[in-house]
Amino acid sequence: MKKKKGTAYNEIAGQSIERLAGLSDGIFAVAMTVLVLDLHLPSVESIHSESDLWRALIRLSPQVGVFAMSLLTLSIFWVGQQTQFNYCSKADRNFTWIHITFLLAVLIMPFSTKLLATFITYRIAFAIYWVNMVALGILVYVSWNYVVKHLHAKTVLLHDISTAIKKRIIIAQSLYAFGALLCLVNTYWSLGFILLVQLNYAIAPKFSRRLG
Amino acid sequence: MKKKKGTAYNEIAGQSIERLAGLSDGIFAVAMTVLVLDLHLPSVESIHSESDLWRALIRLSPQVGVFAMSLLTLSIFWVGQQTQFNYCSKADRNFTWIHITFLLAVLIMPFSTKLLATFITYRIAFAIYWVNMVALGILVYVSWNYVVKHLHAKTVLLHDISTAIKKRIIIAQSLYAFGALLCLVNTYWSLGFILLVQLNYAIAPKFSRRLG
Amino acid sequence: MKKKKGTAYNEIAGQSIERLAGLSDGIFAVAMTVLVLDLHLPSVESIHSESDLWRALIRLSPQVGVFAMSLLTLSIFWVGQQTQFNYCSKADRNFTWIHITFLLAVLIMPFSTKLLATFITYRIAFAIYWVNMVALGILVYVSWNYVVKHLHAKTVLLHDISTAIKKRIIIAQSLYAFGALLCLVNTYWSLGFILLVQLNYAIAPKFSRRLG
Amino acid sequence: MKKKKGTAYNEIAGQSIERLAGLSDGIFAVAMTVLVLDLHLPSVESIHSESDLWRALIRLSPQVGVFAMSLLTLSIFWVGQQTQFNYCSKADRNFTWIHITFLLAVLIMPFSTKLLATFITYRIAFAIYWVNMVALGILVYVSWNYVVKHLHAKTVLLHDISTAIKKRIIIAQSLYAFGALLCLVNTYWSLGFILLVQLNYAIAPKFSRRLG
Repeated sequence: MKKKKGTAYNEIAGQSIERLAGLSDGIFAVAMTVLVLDLHLPSVESIHSESDLWRALIRLSPQVGVFAMSLLTLSIFWVGQQTQFNYCSKADRNFTWIHITFLLAVLIMPFSTKLLATFITYRIAFAIYWVNMVALGILVYVSWNYVVKHLHAKTVLLHDISTAIKKRIIIAQSLYAFGALLCLVNTYWSLGFILLVQLNYAIAPKFSRRLG
Repeated sequence: MKKKKGTAYNEIAGQSIERLAGLSDGIFAVAMTVLVLDLHLPSVESIHSESDLWRALIRLSPQVGVFAMSLLTLSIFWVGQQTQFNYCSKADRNFTWIHITFLLAVLIMPFSTKLLATFITYRIAFAIYWVNMVALGILVYVSWNYVVKHLHAKTVLLHDISTAIKKRIIIAQSLYAFGALLCLVNTYWSLGFILLVQLNYAIAPKFSRRLG
Repeated sequence: MKKKKGTAYNEIAGQSIERLAGLSDGIFAVAMTVLVLDLHLPSVESIHSESDLWRALIRLSPQVGVFAMSLLTLSIFWVGQQTQFNYCSKADRNFTWIHITFLLAVLIMPFSTKLLATFITYRIAFAIYWVNMVALGILVYVSWNYVVKHLHAKTVLLHDISTAIKKRIIIAQSLYAFGALLCLVNTYWSLGFILLVQLNYAIAPKFSRRLG
Repeated sequence: MKKKKGTAYNEIAGQSIERLAGLSDGIFAVAMTVLVLDLHLPSVESIHSESDLWRALIRLSPQVGVFAMSLLTLSIFWVGQQTQFNYCSKADRNFTWIHITFLLAVLIMPFSTKLLATFITYRIAFAIYWVNMVALGILVYVSWNYVVKHLHAKTVLLHDISTAIKKRIIIAQSLYAFGALLCLVNTYWSLGFILLVQLNYAIAPKFSRRLG
C-alpha cells in the first residue's frame, strides 16, 4: 500500500534468515570460547609441586561452576533459537532486529559471567547475571510470538508447538527467578540451583520430560 | 574479448557470494564479541562492599555508552550489507574486494572504539571514530552502485529500491557528520547524539519510518 | 504416541544439522586461533641482538610442540565430526546435545593446552590434557552409535563404514592412553609419542593406511 | 578395489567442501580480527593533550604498516582459496588435509605478525614472516595441482584457468622473495616493497592486470 510513495528501506532490509543464522552461530561460538579464556591459570611462581598444582586447580572450582552455568545457558538458548528458525523460511526487518537484540544479550554474557566469577559473593553481580538471563528469555519469547503472528510459519501442529515453546520458556524463567531469589540466603545456593536446572534441561532425563 | 590471450586470474577470482557472506558473518561476530571483551572489570582489591561494586559499575557507564554505540553501528551496517546481498546472486572480483575493504573497516571498529572509550574527552579520538563510520558508509554506497551497474540485480522495483538504499545511506551519514561536528562543543554531546541516531535506526519507530 | 497429550519441546528442538555444523565450525575456528594467541613473544627488554631473538625463539620450542599437538588433535576431531555429519541428513534433540557436549570438550582444549604448556613437567597437567582427549574420543564414539541407531543414515556400505569409524576411534584412543602412561617416565616422552601419533593420522602415509 | 577388504576410514573422511569452507571462513575471520587486537593503545598516563595523542598515534605507524600488510596478505589468500573452491564440487581426505595445513599457516600469521611488529628491525623476525608467506603460497599451489589431477574440476577453460592460477602464485611468490631479500639492506625496505605488491594485487589497476 505504502509502496505507491516508493519503497522504504525498512521494507526490504534484513530478509535473509541464512545470514542471521550465520551471524548467530558466529556470535555464540565466539562468546562460548571467550568464556573459557577468562579462566585464569595459577601463576607459575606459586606452584612448586604436583600437590600445589592440584590444590590450585581445586581452588578454581567455584569459577569453573560459574563458567559451566554460562556455557549451559548459552547452549540451551542456542538450541532454542535454532528450533524457532526451523519454523520460518524467511526473515524480515523486525525479526532481524529482535534477534540482533537477542545476540547483544548473548555478547554480554561473557562480561556478566566474568563479573560473577570475580565477585561471586556479591548480590549485585548475581542480579546483573540474572537480568542477562531474563533478557535472553524475554527476547526468545518475543521472537516466537513474532514468528507465529507475522512470519506465516508452517501450520501443521502449530498451536501445539507454540504452546510447547512458550510453556518451556515460562517454566525455565520461573525456575531461574526462584534461583535468583535464593541469593538472599547465599549466592552459592543460587549458583547451585540454577546449575542443576540447566543440567536438567541439557540432559532431559525421562522423569522431567513430562514437564515439557 | 581479452580471453583470446588466455584467462586472467582477475576474471575468475572471488565469485562466491556465499563465501563472502560467510567471511562477513565471521568478522562481524568476532568484532562484536571482541568489543565487549574490552570492557574492563573493576579490580578486586578496590571493592569491599556491595555499594563499592555498584559505584564502580556506574563509573563504567560512559564506556558502556561507547560500546553500545559501536555495537549498534556494526549491527546497522550488517543489516545494510545483508540487504544488498539479497539483490545479487553472484559476486565478482571487484565486488569481493569492495566488501573486503568494507570488512577491514569493520575490523578496525574495535580499535577505534577502544581508543574513544579510553580517551573519551579527546577530539582526535572522536575524529578517528567518525572517519571509521564514514568509511563504512562510503563502502556500502560504492558497493550498492556496483551491484546496480554490474551485477545484474533483479529488476523488479529496482529503481525504487536503489533510491531507498542510497537515500538511507546519505541521511544517516549526514546525521553522523552533524554528530561529529558537535564534538566542537563537547565529545559527550557527539556521543549522545549519534547513540540516539543509531537507536532510532535500530528501533525504527512509526513516526521516523516515513524518512526512509 | 505421546503426541496425543500435546507436543513436547524436546520432540521439536535441535533439528537443524546445518546450524549444528555452523556452530561447530565457528567453535573449532575460534578454539584453534586462540591456541596460537597463547604463544607469548619474548619480552622486548630481554632482546638486544639477532642471536638473542634466535635463542629466545628456540626456547619456545616445547611450548610450540604442545600447541602443535593440540592443533593436530582439534583438526583430526574436526575431520572426524565432519565425516559423521555426511551420513545423516537431519539432527534431533539428543544428537544436538551429544555434539554440544563434544563442542564443550573442544572449548576446554585451549585451557588444558595452556595448562600443559605452562606446567609441562607436571603429571597432573598431562593427565587433565589426556582426559580432555578421552572425552573427545568417547563423544565421537557415542555420536556415531547414535547416528547408526536413530538417524537412519544412508545404508549403502553402512556396516563397513560403521566398523571403520569405530575401529579408528578405538585404535587412536589406545595409542593416546599408551602415550599418557609414558608420563610415568617423563611428560616429554608422552608429548613426543602423542605428537607422532597425530602426525601419522594427519599425513596418513601408505604403510599405516592399512591399519585404517 | 580395496573395498573388498572393508572400507578404510581414510576413504570416507573429509568429503564435505561446505564444512571446509565454513571452517576456513571462521579461521580467516578470527585471524584477521585478532591481528587488529594486537595494536596496543598508548597508555593513558602518557597522554595529557590532543597533540600528545596525535604524536602517540603517529608513532604507531610502522606497526600499522605491518598489520596492514598481514591483513592484505590474508585477504589475498582468502580470495585465492575461494577461487579454487569454485572449481571443485566435492572434497576428499587429502584435499581436506592440504587445506587444514593451509589454515594452520593462516593461524600462525597473527603470531608472526606480532613478532615482526615487535622486532621490526630484526632480520630473523622478517625471515619467519616471509617463511609464513611462502608456506601459504606453496600450499595454495599444491592444492590447485590436486584439484586439477584428482577432483575432476569442471573442464571448460580448465587449461587456461590452471595456467592463470599457477602463474599468479609464482609471480607473487617471486616478488615476495625479492622483497624478503631487501631485508639485507633494511627491513623497512622489505616491508614497504611487499606492502606495495599486496596493494597492487588488491587494487589491480588496469596497467598491472596484463601481468595476470
